[in-house]
Amino acid sequence: MPGPRTKAVVCVSGGMDSCVCAAIAASGYDRLYFLHAEYGQRTQARERACFDRLARHFKAEQTLVCRLDHLGEIGGSSLTDTAIELSPAELDSGKIPTSYVPFRNAHFLTIAVSWAEVIGAEAVFIGAVEQDSSGYPDCRKEFYEAFQRVVDLGTRPQTGIEILTPLIGMKKGEIVTLGASLGAPFEMTWSCYKSGEVACGTCDSCALRMRAFSQAGIEDPIPYAAATD
Amino acid sequence: MPGPRTKAVVCVSGGMDSCVCAAIAASGYDRLYFLHAEYGQRTQARERACFDRLARHFKAEQTLVCRLDHLGEIGGSSLTDTAIELSPAELDSGKIPTSYVPFRNAHFLTIAVSWAEVIGAEAVFIGAVEQDSSGYPDCRKEFYEAFQRVVDLGTRPQTGIEILTPLIGMKKGEIVTLGASLGAPFEMTWSCYKSGEVACGTCDSCALRMRAFSQAGIEDPIPYAAATD
Repeated sequence: MPGPRTKAVVCVSGGMDSCVCAAIAASGYDRLYFLHAEYGQRTQARERACFDRLARHFKAEQTLVCRLDHLGEIGGSSLTDTAIELSPAELDSGKIPTSYVPFRNAHFLTIAVSWAEVIGAEAVFIGAVEQDSSGYPDCRKEFYEAFQRVVDLGTRPQTGIEILTPLIGMKKGEIVTLGASLGAPFEMTWSCYKSGEVACGTCDSCALRMRAFSQAGIEDPIPYAAATD
Repeated sequence: MPGPRTKAVVCVSGGMDSCVCAAIAASGYDRLYFLHAEYGQRTQARERACFDRLARHFKAEQTLVCRLDHLGEIGGSSLTDTAIELSPAELDSGKIPTSYVPFRNAHFLTIAVSWAEVIGAEAVFIGAVEQDSSGYPDCRKEFYEAFQRVVDLGTRPQTGIEILTPLIGMKKGEIVTLGASLGAPFEMTWSCYKSGEVACGTCDSCALRMRAFSQAGIEDPIPYAAATD
């Protein structure tokens, strides 16, 4: 580890997990570098607005917003291709939902690592959740462990960048509890896959979020179109 | 391996190694998907022209040209930041040259794998060379082996994508010999890091290329500004 642990790159989508992840990073690192990606996802503008608010809230040293138009061109996901229907939530079904963007988190990590290498950051934070999540293959703990080895081998020998996934083994309810204890600004986040005025309350992502707040016994500060308990 | 080996994604920069790599891919796969990246590198327009010519030559089924402006914004390389001087060639010095773009090949692989997953390609080809090359950390065999594991873990379970680096252990002279035997169109390629009318003959990349053709005893079909043997 070269010198004091001061700089960290944080992947921030604008959702609740990345918000809690940023709060964790803020508790251990002096200077945060906030990374965000626009890839033609359905709620791109809204996610970007959340990112900007979170970056201000956490006093990010610097922000980097990447346009990954090629992810949209490649397609294959209901999140980037409106011709593919968003499947309704089937939590715990073991199926990979249509919203899965092939290998997406590898794109975020790769950019984060290049940035970290250039600015001399010691850590890359990403708020991936395995245990209690949508079943995306790139949210598994083993995926990040394997990626760490790629980072160790694919960067300069004197570079020491740690990939940190503090939420990976947590249940969504625990993430809400932890976030609340760290003062994470949940009101600044957006999780819904649809682009309505308020969150739909029925997509995968809303279903996961609503269950999380309900399990934590904490009120979600954002409004929903439909109450579905 | 799911079904017959028909589709392959090929990372094609427009240089001699990627040209030979494409020739190898063409000898084993029916349908080639050519991937190229523009990231603010010094010779972007020329590399793109070479890519387009190679795609036509190899009758690529489809092409994908990605703009990775964030690599330029991140900087840290003389290849994307003209404020950093291109160091003159120091082959075999063991030093990483200033032209190193941090973690660059991970970006290409990541995009290639997303694309391969969506189109159902069985292979991703990249013409990285370890043994006899510039000393970039992301050109090492171990890097690609580690990346294979990331691919296996980070894509759908039914996906079987192989990362193929057929040139990784070859000497540059052997690559020229092999390319010539496969009819690789070297006259369509560009290797120089500078953007003159003809190749400079003095940068890292020219030095490697010139040595390669000289070792193979084959005449390089492109002209050079300076003869430096």
